[in-house]
Amino acid sequence: MQTTVQKASRKAVILLSGGLDSATVLALAREAGYVCHCISFDYGQRHRVELEAARRVASALGAAGHVIVPVGLDVLGGSALTADIAVPKGRSAARMGADIPVTYVPARNTVFLSLALGYAEVLGARDIFIGANALDYSGYPDCRAEYLEAFERLANLATKAGVEGSPFTLHAPLLRMSKAEIIKEGLRLRVDYSMTRSCYDPDEQGHACGQCDSCVLRQKGFTEAGVG
Amino acid sequence: MQTTVQKASRKAVILLSGGLDSATVLALAREAGYVCHCISFDYGQRHRVELEAARRVASALGAAGHVIVPVGLDVLGGSALTADIAVPKGRSAARMGADIPVTYVPARNTVFLSLALGYAEVLGARDIFIGANALDYSGYPDCRAEYLEAFERLANLATKAGVEGSPFTLHAPLLRMSKAEIIKEGLRLRVDYSMTRSCYDPDEQGHACGQCDSCVLRQKGFTEAGVG
Repeated sequence: MQTTVQKASRKAVILLSGGLDSATVLALAREAGYVCHCISFDYGQRHRVELEAARRVASALGAAGHVIVPVGLDVLGGSALTADIAVPKGRSAARMGADIPVTYVPARNTVFLSLALGYAEVLGARDIFIGANALDYSGYPDCRAEYLEAFERLANLATKAGVEGSPFTLHAPLLRMSKAEIIKEGLRLRVDYSMTRSCYDPDEQGHACGQCDSCVLRQKGFTEAGVG
Repeated sequence: MQTTVQKASRKAVILLSGGLDSATVLALAREAGYVCHCISFDYGQRHRVELEAARRVASALGAAGHVIVPVGLDVLGGSALTADIAVPKGRSAARMGADIPVTYVPARNTVFLSLALGYAEVLGARDIFIGANALDYSGYPDCRAEYLEAFERLANLATKAGVEGSPFTLHAPLLRMSKAEIIKEGLRLRVDYSMTRSCYDPDEQGHACGQCDSCVLRQKGFTEAGVG
């Protein structure tokens, strides 16, 4: 697993949610020279407006391709993001990370990384980029370094490519960055964050609630980056 | 990872394809006393008729529940099972396993196990059963013991349940059985294999082709079990 981005002119798959973290990852991968194929997921999320943002971001930041894969996580339920459970509002950033909130979607990153792995294998890409972040995060277990390392190991046992000696590398360049550091990197790379959407619980017009964990972390990041 | 089934009266999630292997796994888990919740996948497979078989099998073998989860593996392409690539016909069983055939679906078992893991976490189940088999198989890398062990490890890093000290166990009771041994176990448990569907390339009426790897292995198994 890599947390720094080396120069390369080969294909990569980028998990793109439409939020600010994955937009920054795409910009970093493009800067390093990767030919970026983005993958997003239509999983029954209440903040489905993020898929429009993902389309805009992929296009604006020069992705070579973009697929949106339907996956029925809402059939399984169990999360405030996919079922009829209220999204928590007004938690302070300091409080987050102390427990795992109801916005946790069981096994979400494992499902998303698995689909990204399948897409990478089909494309002949061996690099997968994810915007996971272990600081300024909501306390999700599937954003930690040890989890990402275990996924990379699994990927190389799971696939024809891995078995045939052409291994996958999982890149998590934001893993140890604060939200403010992420935003500064993105601004250096001229990412237009007004295109991105982070809110877990937008209204019908797609406007952010300003109160969910994701909105609180986003606002804190812009303030600390001196652009709030 | 467990390859023998111990008695237990708790919930389990069973990956159910509608084929003979997963039907046998469901019968074994039920015999051991598990309360079985089945999960099947509508992934753009050309042999979608297997989903009707999965419904029949879940009902006949006393599953407590059954969900069919849509997942767009066909959006990714790259396999004879989901894209416009011909399914190989007439390969001998001895030839299989020597290479990875075009019916391989990139990262399929990782995607399916990830979704089963999410479902298990939502249900409060800690046992997941899969009909993976390392003998009499088609040469897929994601059916091997070392792959399944790596997935179990990942599952316990990925999830709230795993992090909070209530780990998942992955069960692959058919892993080291021949197809004939699997069929004998199923017949002992009174599984009606006429309900199951194995063919990768059925005709429009759902009739098996008799020539694909899956049909060849199925027929060889029945012959060797003395019921062909």
